[in-house]
Order: sequence, then C-alpha cells, then structure tokens
Amino acid sequence: MDGADGPAGPSSRDPDAVRRVVALAGGIGGARFLRGLLIALDDTGRDSNRKSEFTEVTVIGNTGDDITLFGLRICPDLDTVMYTLGGGINEEQGWGRAGETFAVKDELGLYQAAPQWFGLGDRDIATHVLRTGWLADGVPLSEVTRRLCERWAPGVRLLPMSDDPVETHVLLDDPVQGERTVHFQEWWVRLHAAVPAKSITAVGASAARPAPGVLEAIEAADLIVFPPSNPVVSIGTILQVPGIRDAVVGARAPVIGVSPIIGGAPVRGMADACLAAIGVATTARAVAEHYGPALLDGWLVDDVDAATMQPPLDGIAVRSRPLLMVDLDATAAIARSVFDLAADLRV
Amino acid sequence: MDGADGPAGPSSRDPDAVRRVVALAGGIGGARFLRGLLIALDDTGRDSNRKSEFTEVTVIGNTGDDITLFGLRICPDLDTVMYTLGGGINEEQGWGRAGETFAVKDELGLYQAAPQWFGLGDRDIATHVLRTGWLADGVPLSEVTRRLCERWAPGVRLLPMSDDPVETHVLLDDPVQGERTVHFQEWWVRLHAAVPAKSITAVGASAARPAPGVLEAIEAADLIVFPPSNPVVSIGTILQVPGIRDAVVGARAPVIGVSPIIGGAPVRGMADACLAAIGVATTARAVAEHYGPALLDGWLVDDVDAATMQPPLDGIAVRSRPLLMVDLDATAAIARSVFDLAADLRV
Repeated sequence: MDGADGPAGPSSRDPDAVRRVVALAGGIGGARFLRGLLIALDDTGRDSNRKSEFTEVTVIGNTGDDITLFGLRICPDLDTVMYTLGGGINEEQGWGRAGETFAVKDELGLYQAAPQWFGLGDRDIATHVLRTGWLADGVPLSEVTRRLCERWAPGVRLLPMSDDPVETHVLLDDPVQGERTVHFQEWWVRLHAAVPAKSITAVGASAARPAPGVLEAIEAADLIVFPPSNPVVSIGTILQVPGIRDAVVGARAPVIGVSPIIGGAPVRGMADACLAAIGVATTARAVAEHYGPALLDGWLVDDVDAATMQPPLDGIAVRSRPLLMVDLDATAAIARSVFDLAADLRV
Repeated sequence: MDGADGPAGPSSRDPDAVRRVVALAGGIGGARFLRGLLIALDDTGRDSNRKSEFTEVTVIGNTGDDITLFGLRICPDLDTVMYTLGGGINEEQGWGRAGETFAVKDELGLYQAAPQWFGLGDRDIATHVLRTGWLADGVPLSEVTRRLCERWAPGVRLLPMSDDPVETHVLLDDPVQGERTVHFQEWWVRLHAAVPAKSITAVGASAARPAPGVLEAIEAADLIVFPPSNPVVSIGTILQVPGIRDAVVGARAPVIGVSPIIGGAPVRGMADACLAAIGVATTARAVAEHYGPALLDGWLVDDVDAATMQPPLDGIAVRSRPLLMVDLDATAAIARSVFDLAADLRV
C-alpha cells in the first residue's frame, strides 16, 4: 500500500480494477481462500465489473515450511495451493492428494530408517521425486513449481517466495527435554505445537532473494491480498524475505487482509501457538496491529469480532462479515468483500 | 586363481574348505544361483564337510547397470540380489518386489515428465528414495547397501564392485537412426537389445576404485565363483574395475565359473547380444575362452554342451551337468558341483 507515491490506480468501478491480484499464501487456509477468490473473479453474473479475461492472479507461496525427508524436498504450502486449485487435494484433511495410498511410506517404515510422523502418500511422493530430481539438476524452485503446475493448471501463477532455501525452525521450551530446536514441521505435525515455542526463526530468510517475478508482481498488482493464512509462519515468513515487505509497503495497490482469527481462536491450525511465540495475542485486532498500517489498508474480520475492532485502527479500514469458509459459495463471498473493501479504498 | 604364488589353500576335505566364498554377480541369474549356493552351504545332511558355521559369502555386485531416473539412483543388480536372497523378490519376473503397486509411476506418467519404460513399483521406490537420500548425504554406496541389507538380511555380505559411479553405455548401430549411444538400461529394457550393439562401454570403470572390502575378500577367499551372470555387462564390468581382475587372477582360491550359455543360447536375458558386441560366440566354450585360464580354474557347463568342450581347454578344468535352475533343489545341486570341482582342483 502506498496511496501517495504510487501512480493512481484504476478507478474502483473500472472493469480491470482487479485485473492483477497478488496473494501471499500459506497452506490450507490460503489455498481454500484462493479457490473462492478465483470463483469470485470468474463470477460475471453477479457483478460484471469484476470479470476480466485478462485477470491474472499471482500467488506468492511460503516456502519456510519446506523440509527434506528421506532426501526428498517437500514444499507443503506450494503443494497445498497447487493441489487445491488444481483439483487434486484431499478435501477432508486439506493437504495431500485425494485417493492416496501409502505403499512407499509403509516400506520406509519397514526399513526403520525414516521418520514416520510425516504422512507422505504415494501420489504426493511422485511430486517430491520430480521436484527433488529437478532441484538436483540445478533447476530453481520457481521453475520446478512452474513445471509441476503445467499438469495441475491451478489457474494462478504460483511463485515460491524465494528460490533460496528457507527453513522455519522452532526453539522449544520443553518442560521435559529443556530447550531444543526443531524444524517447524516437527513441531507442527509431530508435536502438534503442544510444546510451547520460545521463538520461531526463518533460517536463511535474511539471505534469501525474492524469486523471479515476485517483486514485479507486487509492484504491478491492482490488489494485494493476505488470505487467512498464519500471520507468523506463513505470511510473516514471506515478508521476511528482503525486499518483499518493502515492495508490499510501497505498492500502489490496496492491501487487504482476511483475519485468520475468529472469536479469539484460529479458524484452523495452531496459529495461536505461533502468535504466542512472538508475543501477539490471538485476536483479530492484535493480528491487524501486528501487520500494522504500513502493510495493511483494509482488514476483514468476522462479525463476532466486530466489537473488538473499536476504537478504529489507525490507518486500517475494517469491515466485518462471516468469515468461516464453510463452502465454496461462502468463500467466494468473502473474496467479493475483499474486492468491495479494496474498491472503496480506491475511491 | 594362482596355484603357484598364493599360500597353500586348506585341503579339499577340510571342513572349512569353502569357509569364505566370493561370488561376482549380476542380476537375476546370479541372484538365483546364489540362493542355491546358500542352501548348498547350509546343507549338512548331504556332506558334512561343506557345513561351517563360519561360512561367509561375499557377493561383489555389478553396478554398471545403475541408472538415475527421476533423480532416483537405481541399482538393479544389487537390489535383485538383495531382494532375491532377502525374500522380497517378484519370483515371476525375477526382479522388483513381490506384491508391487505402481501409484508413483502412474503419477509420474500424469506429469508427463518421466520415461515410463522403466517399471518402478512403489515398494521398490522406497529403496531408491532411501539410497538416493543417503548418497546425497555423502554416504558411500557400499554403506548404503549395508544399511539396506540390514532389513533384508540376505545371508551374504553384499558389496558393490565400487563406490564410484560406473554406467554401462551402448553404442547402437541403429538401422533407422544411425549410430547413437544409450544407457545400457535403455537398450536392455526399452529396446530389448533388439537394435544391434556396436560396442559396450563401462563409462567410469577405468577410474573406479574397488569398494572397501572387495579386494580383501577376493584375497581371503577359499572359493571364487562366477555365477551364470552375463559375461559382458555383469561379470565383465566388475572385472573392469582396476584391481579386481588382478586380484582374481592372483587369488589363492580356485575360480569356478558356471556357464550362462546352454546349447548356444543364454539361459535368460539377452547375453548373446552382448557377446556379439564384443565378438564372442554365444557358446559355453567361447565364453570360457573369453574368460581364459588366467581367470578360470574350472568351468561348469550343461550336459548338452559337453561335446563342444572337446578338445580340452588349456588350463581350465571342465565338468558338465544339468545347469537349468528349474527350482531351488536343482540350483543347490549346481552349487554343490561347483564345490566338488573346486575340491578336486585343490587336491
């Protein structure tokens, strides 16, 4: 957001008002929101202003969750977005592939050589095998992701935040084992974030460069969205890659966030444990204040949190509406509210 | 073999006469023979002289067939020996795993990113995933193989011929496409060796070092066996690793070969195509002459080839017997004939 320095955006009722959308996304919550966003963009029946055949959605995906297991490079958030938008996701669990089998995992278990807490299915493993092979050949992650998306056709341009490896590590304040550092995935998946985190560090982030196209997409965007992804380990990690935060702060487009916190609890996942680690309360208001008006122009909260947004936040326009993504229609409606808030901020 | 220079071996009827056996092995034929050899060694009922609780069988496996597909390092011959002796082999096809599924392969096909002619099953892939990950961590192939064998307990010490990568390439004399070089596996598996090979080269062999333990095992052996493996691309490749041929030639143990050719045709596989490429006839006699008396002390041929072994070969003792490995008993009987021939050579 930068209302002063940037060139004037298109007027709010311009058919191309949301021609170029950029979203910073984590995994499940972000992916589900994006599915609604694509429906909303395609929805000509309701509001012809929103439809544009030139609409381009760029998703800047978090790669801090990435992990190497059994030598396979796994990018959970990129894959969740790719599978969800490409129609291959396991709908019930929100990650991994539909119709999955586990022959490889069972075999790895019989070798007693590998951690079993990360549930890699056979179909999913094919993705990791291809990715790992290409990376070993020197292909950058952004190009690997492009190749994988050729099959999935997710309807968005999916970019990793960086081609450089970043891994989120968690310093645990373990009452039994004392302080120790684990990979984010071990904390999240194996320990269910039940052991308190003393700090969360995106190792490698400070030296990482934005992947090709990331800064350009932010600069060219007509709308920048923070989906209801984890503010710490998803969007927070993306913003730690040098240049990305500055690009968002300096962008001409309005930046609209959708609160991942409803009624004082994360909609899903364990964002409260992450927020606690950085000293931020698990409330819609505290998260907006954490992002702050330098980043956010607008903030969408659930109706149950409307009262907590008084007094108004300085420099952040707030709207409330139902935010539970109970189905595709509800999710698309949330996305439309994001468009509406952005349009109102432009006029 | 070196009757002159080496220390005197144990006498032929010494209970420990075949305490330390070394076999140079390729894939299916070698693995099936080794299964019979282990039974013969354990068979106290027939001849107590052969039983020793200290029996150690070292298998020096060909790695020239190894190939990297989708970034996974695949060692077909080592795995065939490991699965066959460890009870995990697909008995019908002789390679790959029993009860296999193909979810990963099907997925790779949907990505249209990978060759489909190499039939990797899910269970098999788990082995390759572990191997590839360990190799990427800098673990040598010999240690990788040892770790994999911890699960399979094949009853032998399985050593790759070298920790250094060797890949057999084939120069094709293609009537349609002209001369071109392909990986051995592409010639063998994809083209079924139907296109004539002009030459076969073990790329990397001349710079490869024997894996740890290989030369020591050959030197310490009481018996060295060439199973009915491919004389060109299996045993021939192993012998190309500098030091291995000299060690076999200089070994104090008798070296006994089992002919892979019966009645002018390979028992299985397409060894004739390989022999043609090096100008050797597809006969039991020609293969023995190809190895020569510097390597071989004894040569076991099928009864149908007995007449072709006249006049006698200079410096190679020949016996004939049925050589078709129709079942475990028949295979064990062949191994016993190897022991008998070795014992006769010692007295």
